[in-house]
Amino acid sequence: MTNRPKVVIIGGGFGGLQAAKALKNEKVAVTLIDRKNHHTFQPLLYQVATAVLSPGEIASPIRRILNRAKNVEVLLGEVVGFDLDKQTVKLLDNSEVPYDYLIVAAGARHAYFGHDEWEEFAPGLKTLEDALEIRRRVLLAFELAEKQAVLTGSHEPLHFVVVGGGPTGVEVAGAIAGIARQALAKDFKAIDTTSARVMLFEGSDKVLGTFSPELSESAKKQLEEIGVEVHLKSFVTDIEPGRVKVGENWIDCEVVVWASGVSASPLGKMLGVETDRAGRVPVNKDLTIPNRKNVFVIGDMVSLLQENGKPVPGVAPAAMQMADLAAENILRDIRGLFYHDFKYWDKGSMATIGRSKAIAEAGRFKMSGFIAWLAWLFVHLISLIGFRNRLWVLTEWFWAYLTRERAARLITGDAEELQDALKFLEAKPISSELIEKPKEAKKSVKKKEQKA
Amino acid sequence: MTNRPKVVIIGGGFGGLQAAKALKNEKVAVTLIDRKNHHTFQPLLYQVATAVLSPGEIASPIRRILNRAKNVEVLLGEVVGFDLDKQTVKLLDNSEVPYDYLIVAAGARHAYFGHDEWEEFAPGLKTLEDALEIRRRVLLAFELAEKQAVLTGSHEPLHFVVVGGGPTGVEVAGAIAGIARQALAKDFKAIDTTSARVMLFEGSDKVLGTFSPELSESAKKQLEEIGVEVHLKSFVTDIEPGRVKVGENWIDCEVVVWASGVSASPLGKMLGVETDRAGRVPVNKDLTIPNRKNVFVIGDMVSLLQENGKPVPGVAPAAMQMADLAAENILRDIRGLFYHDFKYWDKGSMATIGRSKAIAEAGRFKMSGFIAWLAWLFVHLISLIGFRNRLWVLTEWFWAYLTRERAARLITGDAEELQDALKFLEAKPISSELIEKPKEAKKSVKKKEQKA
Repeated sequence: MTNRPKVVIIGGGFGGLQAAKALKNEKVAVTLIDRKNHHTFQPLLYQVATAVLSPGEIASPIRRILNRAKNVEVLLGEVVGFDLDKQTVKLLDNSEVPYDYLIVAAGARHAYFGHDEWEEFAPGLKTLEDALEIRRRVLLAFELAEKQAVLTGSHEPLHFVVVGGGPTGVEVAGAIAGIARQALAKDFKAIDTTSARVMLFEGSDKVLGTFSPELSESAKKQLEEIGVEVHLKSFVTDIEPGRVKVGENWIDCEVVVWASGVSASPLGKMLGVETDRAGRVPVNKDLTIPNRKNVFVIGDMVSLLQENGKPVPGVAPAAMQMADLAAENILRDIRGLFYHDFKYWDKGSMATIGRSKAIAEAGRFKMSGFIAWLAWLFVHLISLIGFRNRLWVLTEWFWAYLTRERAARLITGDAEELQDALKFLEAKPISSELIEKPKEAKKSVKKKEQKA
Repeated sequence: MTNRPKVVIIGGGFGGLQAAKALKNEKVAVTLIDRKNHHTFQPLLYQVATAVLSPGEIASPIRRILNRAKNVEVLLGEVVGFDLDKQTVKLLDNSEVPYDYLIVAAGARHAYFGHDEWEEFAPGLKTLEDALEIRRRVLLAFELAEKQAVLTGSHEPLHFVVVGGGPTGVEVAGAIAGIARQALAKDFKAIDTTSARVMLFEGSDKVLGTFSPELSESAKKQLEEIGVEVHLKSFVTDIEPGRVKVGENWIDCEVVVWASGVSASPLGKMLGVETDRAGRVPVNKDLTIPNRKNVFVIGDMVSLLQENGKPVPGVAPAAMQMADLAAENILRDIRGLFYHDFKYWDKGSMATIGRSKAIAEAGRFKMSGFIAWLAWLFVHLISLIGFRNRLWVLTEWFWAYLTRERAARLITGDAEELQDALKFLEAKPISSELIEKPKEAKKSVKKKEQKA
C-alpha cells in the first residue's frame, strides 16, 4: 500500500467524508484528517440546540463510518498549514503528512462581519458545542425567569432574538417558539412559558431569500403562525450582554442566536491563492487551485460559478458532488487522463420551520406546510449517516411529535462553565421597571392554585 | 398554598427527589433547589464515561420528573449558606429562600485526601461532566496512539490506570478493558487496541471490600478474565501528568481515573454541627441535626450507625429510605406527633464488572457471573427514572450487547477545551525508548495489509 499515490483529505464533513467514500478500495492510500473525531450532521444541529435530539443522534465517529474502507486512515489532528512545494500538510504538533493529492474540505464557520466580540453574546450554530451552548442559554433563561417569579412574584419578560432569516435562523426561531409553547409549558409552574417572545431580525426584505418569493412569503406566514415575530429590513447594528441594537433601538433579550453570514475556513487563505471576502477559494472548473494540479478545494470553502452565472450554493449536496468529482479527477490523473469539469446538479432545496411546517422547491415544483414538512423529514432521515442513527432519530421524532415532549433537555457544561452562566444570569438585577409596574409584569406569571 | 408549611429540599439526587415525591400532594409547599437542572442516575455514569450511553439516557430534567407534583416548585440555584435562626437558605445571587422545614440532601463528591491538585490529572466520576471528561480522555488516548503509529510506525504503549477498587473503580476498569478489546478494535487500523493495559490499584487486600470474601475474590477473577490487571495492597502516592506513583515506582499512563474516597458536600459544614473527617453530618436517629428539630440531613452526607453498629452505607436505597422518613417526620410534626427513628433496610448489594460479569449479595444469598449480571441489569433498569429512559437504555444495551458497538463515542468539548487536550497530547514526545527499541514497540502495531 505504501507505493500507492497518497491522497490527504482535510475535513470530515459532508465533502471530506464523501471524497473518502469515493476513493474507498481504489488504488490510493487515503488519510482523512479532522480536528474532531466525529462527523456532524449539520442540518439537524438546530434540533440539538433546542433539546429535541442528543448530540449522539446527529453525530457519528468518522472512524466508524469509514471502518470498512481498508485504504482510508483517519487522523485526529489540527491542520495549521501547507507546504505546497514539498507536498506536505503541517499539523499543530509540528508533524507533517505527505501527499500526492490534496483535497481541502474544511468547511465554514459563522462570521460576525468584523465584530468578533459579538460571538460571546450571540453564539452561532455550526458545531455540536455551539448547539449545546445555545441549548444551555435557552433553558437557563427559562430557569432564571421561574426563579425570579418564585422568589419575587414577577419576572423579566422572556425575549429570544435570532439574527438572520436564512435556513438556520428560521429553524432556530421556529424551534424556540415550539419549546416555549409546548414542551416546557407544563413543567414551569410559576411562569407562563408561552408568553416568551421570539424575534427574528433579517436585513433583507424576506426570509429564506434563496427560495421563490411565494415560498418566502409562505415561510414568513408559517413562522408567524407558531408565534415568531418576523422583522424584515431590520439590521442588527450592535450586541451587548442582554440586549441587541436593531437600527437605532436597543432591545432587551435573554438569548441571542447568530445565524447571519459565514466565512470559509482559514485554511483557504493558506493555500497561496487570493480568497474572496468570505474567505472562499476561487477554484478552476476542475476544482483545483490555480497552478496546482494536485490540490483540490471543495464544499463551503469554494467560490465557483455555475453555468447559469449563479454561485454554487454552500449546501451539503454541492459539497458531496464536488467530492465525487475531485475523487474522480484524482483517479483520472493517475491513469493519465484529463480532468473533468464540475457541473452542479440542483436537486432542489427545502427548509423546515417548525412542527408540521416547512417549504420545499425543486425546479418549478413548490410545496409548503405539512406535505413539505413530511418531505423534509424523509429527505433528512435517509441522509442521516448510519442505519442505527436513523432508527433512533425517527423514534425520537415520533415520540416528540406525539407527546410534544423534549427528551434532551439537559443543561450540561463543566462545573465552572455552569457557575459562570448562573452567576451571569443571577447577577442581572430584577428590572426596576418590573417592580414599578407590577401588574403588567405579572401578566405572564401564572396564577397560583387557589384551592389550597 | 402560601399558608402551608414550607419545606425546602436541597439536592435533586436520589434522596432529594424521593423526599419531594414523598411530600407530593401533601399539605406542604415544597421547593427543591439544585444547581443542575437534571437528576443524574449515578450508578450508570460509568457507562457514559466509557461511551455506551449518552448523557440524555441516564439523566432527566428534575422539573419534568416532578411536573405533576403541584405543590413542588423546582429552582435552579447554588446554595451558599443557611441562616438557621431566621430559617432561610441563601443562594449565590444573595436571594434567600425561607423554610419551615429543611431537608439537606446535597450528596458527596470524590475526594483526594488533601491532594486536590491531583484532580486535574485524575478526574473522578460523580457528574455527567466528569463522565464526559473521562470519555474524552480515554478516546483521545487511542486517537493519539493511532496518529503516532500512522506518522512514525510505532506508538507509546496504551496504559490506563484506575485508582480504587470499590464499585466505581471496578466498573470503570472493566468497561475500559471492554471497549479496548471489542468496540474499538475494528475502527483503529494502525494500532492494536486490544494491546491496551488497564491497571487497577487498590490499597486494601481485596476489591469490592464491602462484599463477602468469596464474592470479592470472584470479582477479582472476573476482572482478570476480561483483561484488567488488579493490583491489591497498592497505594497511589503521587500523580503527575502522564504518570502515577504506586508505592515507590512511577508508572507511565495516558489516562488516570480516580475512584477512591468521597467527601460530603461542603454544605454539611455550614449547618453549625461538627462533621466527621469525610465532611459527613452526624444526625440524630430521627435524621435531624442536634438542636434543630426542623433541619433534616439525608443520604451520602450523613454519618449514622445502624443498630448492628455498622454505618449506614452511602448508597441510593439508603438515601431514599432516609428521604421517606424525613418526609414522614415532617408530616408527623405538622400533626403534632413525635418523630420516628430511622431503620435501614438492607436489600442487598450488587456490582457489575463487565459484559456478562457481576456479583450480587443479599443476606446469605450470593450470585456471581452471568446470572448476577442479569440481576444487575434488571434492578438498574427498573430503577431508572421515567418509562422512556428505561426503554431507550434497554434498546441501547441490547444493541451494544449484540454488536459490541459503542454508540456514544463522541469526543465533545468546546473548541478551546479540545485544543488544550490535543495540544497536551500532541506535545508529548514520541518516547525515545520506542525509537531505540522499535521491534518491541511495534509489537502492538498491526501489520499493514500486504496484498496491495
